Amino acid sequence: MEPKKLVHGGDWAGFTEEYGTAPLDFSANVSPLGVPEEVKKALKQAIKTVDRYPDPLCRSLCRKIARHEQVPESYVLCGNGAADLIFRAVMAVAPKRALLTAPTFAEYEAALQQVGCQVERYVLREESNFSLDDGFLAKIQPGIDLVFLCEPNNPTGQVSPKEFLWQVAKRCQDCGAKLVLDECFGDFLADPAAHTFKNELSRFPGLMILRAFTKLYAMAGVRLGYALCAGEDWMEKMRAASQPWAVSSLAQAAGEAALDETEYVRRVRTLIATERPWMIEKLSLLGLRVIPGQANYLLFQCPVPLLRPLREKGILLRSCGNYPGLSDDWYRTAVRTHQENERLLQAIEEVLR
Amino acid sequence: MEPKKLVHGGDWAGFTEEYGTAPLDFSANVSPLGVPEEVKKALKQAIKTVDRYPDPLCRSLCRKIARHEQVPESYVLCGNGAADLIFRAVMAVAPKRALLTAPTFAEYEAALQQVGCQVERYVLREESNFSLDDGFLAKIQPGIDLVFLCEPNNPTGQVSPKEFLWQVAKRCQDCGAKLVLDECFGDFLADPAAHTFKNELSRFPGLMILRAFTKLYAMAGVRLGYALCAGEDWMEKMRAASQPWAVSSLAQAAGEAALDETEYVRRVRTLIATERPWMIEKLSLLGLRVIPGQANYLLFQCPVPLLRPLREKGILLRSCGNYPGLSDDWYRTAVRTHQENERLLQAIEEVLR
Repeated sequence: MEPKKLVHGGDWAGFTEEYGTAPLDFSANVSPLGVPEEVKKALKQAIKTVDRYPDPLCRSLCRKIARHEQVPESYVLCGNGAADLIFRAVMAVAPKRALLTAPTFAEYEAALQQVGCQVERYVLREESNFSLDDGFLAKIQPGIDLVFLCEPNNPTGQVSPKEFLWQVAKRCQDCGAKLVLDECFGDFLADPAAHTFKNELSRFPGLMILRAFTKLYAMAGVRLGYALCAGEDWMEKMRAASQPWAVSSLAQAAGEAALDETEYVRRVRTLIATERPWMIEKLSLLGLRVIPGQANYLLFQCPVPLLRPLREKGILLRSCGNYPGLSDDWYRTAVRTHQENERLLQAIEEVLR
Repeated sequence: MEPKKLVHGGDWAGFTEEYGTAPLDFSANVSPLGVPEEVKKALKQAIKTVDRYPDPLCRSLCRKIARHEQVPESYVLCGNGAADLIFRAVMAVAPKRALLTAPTFAEYEAALQQVGCQVERYVLREESNFSLDDGFLAKIQPGIDLVFLCEPNNPTGQVSPKEFLWQVAKRCQDCGAKLVLDECFGDFLADPAAHTFKNELSRFPGLMILRAFTKLYAMAGVRLGYALCAGEDWMEKMRAASQPWAVSSLAQAAGEAALDETEYVRRVRTLIATERPWMIEKLSLLGLRVIPGQANYLLFQCPVPLLRPLREKGILLRSCGNYPGLSDDWYRTAVRTHQENERLLQAIEEVLR
């Protein structure tokens, strides 16, 4: 029906229509531990009053996020998933020229195309595992209105040193460019607190950080993300770029409950930290090139087509051929539970044999 | 915090923060019977798989809506509430000049402002109960790119004869203007089937009809609405004007369940049909001017300020002073259950005494 809207992974619905069963989904990068019980309870509780319009200001949730992130409440704006905020951030800036890396998350460009923005790409080099380098800094020039940076990058899982992010933020400020730092997968890093750039928000009012509930709390179907930014103008324009009720009351309730889930977060992070290196090792042993990503997914190269044969085995994988900067032989896999990861690896091994 | 985003009714959250209790809310126009039980069950069921991304194509829901509305599936596009679709419809058209009535729903202008559109208003006359007339047709001229018409109109509850809508649609087509017909409150009319313009969709590819689950099924907190349109270009642009996952999986499940609620719909409609004339009579007996609306809300004029005194009594009412075309002494009230309506009327009577 709408191939343009199926550029991403996670199309379990298409699989289910084809096969009549649910797939084992390695194409979407969400916590494999499922929705935390307390979040489910909060959702059930919220159903009782779902006849009311949502609070358009998300007052209670924003307060809690502000406390959680240790930023002023005025820095917080909630959206219908982080993807909603990408579109609103772009509409608010209405950039003429923007800078993206290649590869990176597809929705930046999708949003930029909506405002007729010219998109420049900094192509990351395979030889250096698609990590950022000084060449990116040089591309930030006067005339660039908006820069998107995904840290860790999707689909590579690469992160940049904080000092480098400082240089990017400084260079953007000097050139009059806004900077969106997408930290939606930052929670899966070994030390998220050490990597997040949120403590620099007040120094860079032209900086916006995006975060999501989707991945860490396995709430992809709920739709909830938030932006952090000290720039009042930008935030005000983002509010105006949307209907007032973008965030459902169910999402607001779920978000509040999720922020209390410290033990769940610890478990997810421990699981990913254990499974990720194991998967890197196993995929490498199969003779595949794996980019040493640091998020809850891994980018790897495989000379043999994997998508269809894995699909026949009930497994969804993300082909990365539609990422600018990647060819058809690159794939992204989520990191899931050990048992599930074993099933994926065995299936890949069978295809390769 | 954000007064710009509080132009609407339904701010129970603000009330609760001020008073510590929930208000009796006459400021939002949703079914007073609450969320249908089967919709609640569907929401609970959907929580189990809310860790997955929503189906970006809303395949199953769109099929069911298409059957329900008896239109081709390709005519259906779901959104994060009808308000989401208003913004997307505008972004897709990118109009330079648009025509609205005054008064009418505020989000049309809010969306038009986002694309820098010049908004022309056709001011409806109080003397004729704010009903549409031929003067509106004359305002549809070449150079107008987009026309919004709300039927029944919010906040007046007025509807136009179908023959008149035909003339509007024809005139728009002749002038090269797109037409958005907002039928979100059409379900509350005495004979919705007789009034809806959906059977004319295939004749007018530049016509879009908006419908919502919000009001009829008391699902305002869930966020779900849909657009019906035969124009493939417009629909394709609307899809591109948003993230792929605008409609949560909870909303998709709730929507499918709601479409089976024929008995609930009968009950709501019977209730509104009984209570509406009764409220008109009672408000008139209090000496207030009431516009004979045909939806689940009523517009009335009151020389005495009502908002604050009713608020002190635990009741939210919608002041209409911020509608272009209305002065501060106009109010909109929802039509709710008999007991609730009695409470409102008694409270108003107390204020007037």
